[in-house]
Amino acid sequence: MGIEIERKFLVRSDGWKALVTQRAALRQGYLSTNAKATVRVRTRDDAQAVVTIKGAAVGLVRAEYEYAIPIEDGREMLAMAAPHVIEKVRHLVPIGDLIWEVDVFGGKHAGLVLAEVELHAADQPVPLPDWAGAEVSQDDRYANASLSRSDGVPDEMLV
Amino acid sequence: MGIEIERKFLVRSDGWKALVTQRAALRQGYLSTNAKATVRVRTRDDAQAVVTIKGAAVGLVRAEYEYAIPIEDGREMLAMAAPHVIEKVRHLVPIGDLIWEVDVFGGKHAGLVLAEVELHAADQPVPLPDWAGAEVSQDDRYANASLSRSDGVPDEMLV
Repeated sequence: MGIEIERKFLVRSDGWKALVTQRAALRQGYLSTNAKATVRVRTRDDAQAVVTIKGAAVGLVRAEYEYAIPIEDGREMLAMAAPHVIEKVRHLVPIGDLIWEVDVFGGKHAGLVLAEVELHAADQPVPLPDWAGAEVSQDDRYANASLSRSDGVPDEMLV
Repeated sequence: MGIEIERKFLVRSDGWKALVTQRAALRQGYLSTNAKATVRVRTRDDAQAVVTIKGAAVGLVRAEYEYAIPIEDGREMLAMAAPHVIEKVRHLVPIGDLIWEVDVFGGKHAGLVLAEVELHAADQPVPLPDWAGAEVSQDDRYANASLSRSDGVPDEMLV
């Protein structure tokens, strides 16, 4: 088992753009989002695929299991998950010891930009870059699984 | 993607027992059983584990994706799936060109014995052994995912 400890923030300016070292087009769909587990399929640049099973979150922490699968399986399972699918371009932005992931959403979630950072411990200090806005780590509306079920992103979620 | 085409029968006598070539103790739990997909984790003799994602059934046919995973992950995900877990001993019973799987359930499903046979085509002829009883292929109560959610097996399901 892996453990995922993640904090998530709105993005309030474009300051991160000059710092991007890598980007990838992600498509991800949800086969399950019940209380026990979230089951996600994700393709990366339509070339690689993983299935990820995440347990229930306890605060910022949740169990996570991830397995590489054939890209064909990934594409088929994305179709199976429709319409609960998210499209986003993920940008890697290294700052100090941390690697921020800035996700620019597309499709029905266009306009939403979120920055995530994965931590080793829930109490690890996180120096916030000036382009990071309000923290939404514990706001379920910003969970990708929740977003996949929404028809769009209301304006009040963007500020 | 694999395709699963399966027929399932009650078992009305012990005639199969003399024909068993292999047996394994299976524990399987369900992380999701929604309309889109069933997500199952299964351990075999507490030594091997797989995660299996099955699409919605169309008649006897459903899409199936199966991936081997580390046994430790399998055990942890079974705990995550609790109490929606099934224990059974699976017996392989070759008859002619077909390999029957006779599942003797334990735990809260003790008393239930089901015989399954996997086919290449939905219309493939299946010569029925004399120990095979009523067909329950399309009776959702006998789906393992349904059984995992039940507290036991009522008498009327055993005949």
